[in-house]
Amino acid sequence: MTPTPIPDQMTAVVLDSYDGADALRVVQRPVPRPGPKQVLVKVAAASINPSDLMFILGQYGFKKPTPTVPGFEGSGTVIAVGSSTGLMGRYLAGKRVACVTQQDGLWAEYATTTVNYALPLDGAVSLEQGAMAVVNPLTAVALIDLAKKAGQQTVINTAAASALGLMLHRLGRQEGVEVAGIVRRAEQVAYLKQQGVAHVLNSSDPDFPRQLHDLCHQQNIRLAFDAIAGESPYLLLDAMPQHSRVTVYGGLSQQPVQVNVASLIFEDKRVDGFWLPPWVGQKNLLQNFLIWRRAQKLMLSALKTEIRSRYPLSQVQQAIRDYESQMTGGKVLLVPEM
Amino acid sequence: MTPTPIPDQMTAVVLDSYDGADALRVVQRPVPRPGPKQVLVKVAAASINPSDLMFILGQYGFKKPTPTVPGFEGSGTVIAVGSSTGLMGRYLAGKRVACVTQQDGLWAEYATTTVNYALPLDGAVSLEQGAMAVVNPLTAVALIDLAKKAGQQTVINTAAASALGLMLHRLGRQEGVEVAGIVRRAEQVAYLKQQGVAHVLNSSDPDFPRQLHDLCHQQNIRLAFDAIAGESPYLLLDAMPQHSRVTVYGGLSQQPVQVNVASLIFEDKRVDGFWLPPWVGQKNLLQNFLIWRRAQKLMLSALKTEIRSRYPLSQVQQAIRDYESQMTGGKVLLVPEM
Repeated sequence: MTPTPIPDQMTAVVLDSYDGADALRVVQRPVPRPGPKQVLVKVAAASINPSDLMFILGQYGFKKPTPTVPGFEGSGTVIAVGSSTGLMGRYLAGKRVACVTQQDGLWAEYATTTVNYALPLDGAVSLEQGAMAVVNPLTAVALIDLAKKAGQQTVINTAAASALGLMLHRLGRQEGVEVAGIVRRAEQVAYLKQQGVAHVLNSSDPDFPRQLHDLCHQQNIRLAFDAIAGESPYLLLDAMPQHSRVTVYGGLSQQPVQVNVASLIFEDKRVDGFWLPPWVGQKNLLQNFLIWRRAQKLMLSALKTEIRSRYPLSQVQQAIRDYESQMTGGKVLLVPEM
Repeated sequence: MTPTPIPDQMTAVVLDSYDGADALRVVQRPVPRPGPKQVLVKVAAASINPSDLMFILGQYGFKKPTPTVPGFEGSGTVIAVGSSTGLMGRYLAGKRVACVTQQDGLWAEYATTTVNYALPLDGAVSLEQGAMAVVNPLTAVALIDLAKKAGQQTVINTAAASALGLMLHRLGRQEGVEVAGIVRRAEQVAYLKQQGVAHVLNSSDPDFPRQLHDLCHQQNIRLAFDAIAGESPYLLLDAMPQHSRVTVYGGLSQQPVQVNVASLIFEDKRVDGFWLPPWVGQKNLLQNFLIWRRAQKLMLSALKTEIRSRYPLSQVQQAIRDYESQMTGGKVLLVPEM
């Protein structure tokens, strides 16, 4: 590995307090050095995910001491490895990687992460695709896995026109699980039908509850994945047959989950949640390696993500506004070297 | 069995539409005749349960064609048996029974039920206790059973000063499960402490959320039983440690269940429901016989219920108002022959 020069200072986005995009600033700060079991990544691209939006509002599963650099997911090149990184560290040195981090994040020119969270990218996968290679693809793998374990031939998903929604549909089809979709606008219905989604409902349709009931009963849909919260789980559980379950994986509505008491008591229905980190944590190294290899292969087809726009770090607030204005129709990337 | 004369007409409460207590009338109507596999019971007393209040509002697990006689639970004497009732029918003839019915109900002088739903009363159990011998006692047995299966040494229950709440506490203590209680008034705290409940919280206390958090973490409470719905499951799940569950068995607040999205996603918490009929239905005859024998023994101690007031059928609306005005502090019975 030819040593890449590492500057002292870098451009980074920092969050000063958990008050959302307004609390973000673009600053110069020291380039982090990889500690034990860590690698240093020169960031090529970083994604903006719903989990990042929750994080900067203080609504995610954990907080980091502020000021902190947000950005859970990105891609880049490993330019330095810390001590105790062993064989994996030597292997990764100089490699293109997809990575996630729970330390100072990827909305910066450089970031560190633990060696296990830097995943080597196949040559066919671009660094930009690599920046969206972990959170959504593995979530799709996990949710389709849940559907199969629950013995479901058809499940239903909300926010179905999102990057994850499209992945779920395509991966599900490959794995023998039909993923019906719920969207909010007529053009999204048309788009998903064009993508081959057999069952798409528009929640803005006045007749939506009846359509949902009919679909769930005709297709015997007893498992729903919900990214919205608020009234969405209420409507889903109401519509599904007895012994059904809604698994909440997002809270786009910013509202608490609501559930009809009668659904719980009289119809043996229930609500739970899904979070990727513990799902990954439950797997052993070999299982995760196999899942990652599978996700890589699918990255060029079922798990490919469209990119809508790219922003430099200095325009992070504009990038977030762009993403929030329409959370479907392609991902928004932060690209340090633009 | 000396044949008891059966009149043609009886006094009964009927529900004309699912509009609550206002839609109840007291009428004369034909005494029902037991069909195949049914027995006819001369009603001694009938209880008013939360499930009856839900039923007359159309919020229960099923509706019957109107006009119908409400009243799921009561007691009396078997005065006639229908065809195909076999050995059990012959055994029950003339016996005092506790009974539940999903047919025309027990708020009447006479009622039919299927032979399996008429449970012979031990000599030591009065007809009035027998009128409250099934729904609450078996619910208590079922919930303590759930707590034990979940490996919980301590659970928490809302509406803890209700008849069921007291049973849960006493039965739990016998079975090695501590049932902490949540009530809404200071005098209920004092009452439950006097009854030996070790942990009682008052949800009207401004400091309640912190107290609840501390109790749940100190006692490692990961299972809560909730009779209230609305915000109650939200607060419970928020306060409990990771991997916790709220099981909703009532909806006294008349509000949908609310749950914090973060509880579901980041803390692996979940919400489900409990309903007695399927729990009983899952057991075989022998299991149900053993459960009933156990419940009978406990009826004189752990499962004993205080009676607050008795009303004739003609005062059904007053009886309901009395019960609704304070759902703790003893049950309200309808007694046809007053």
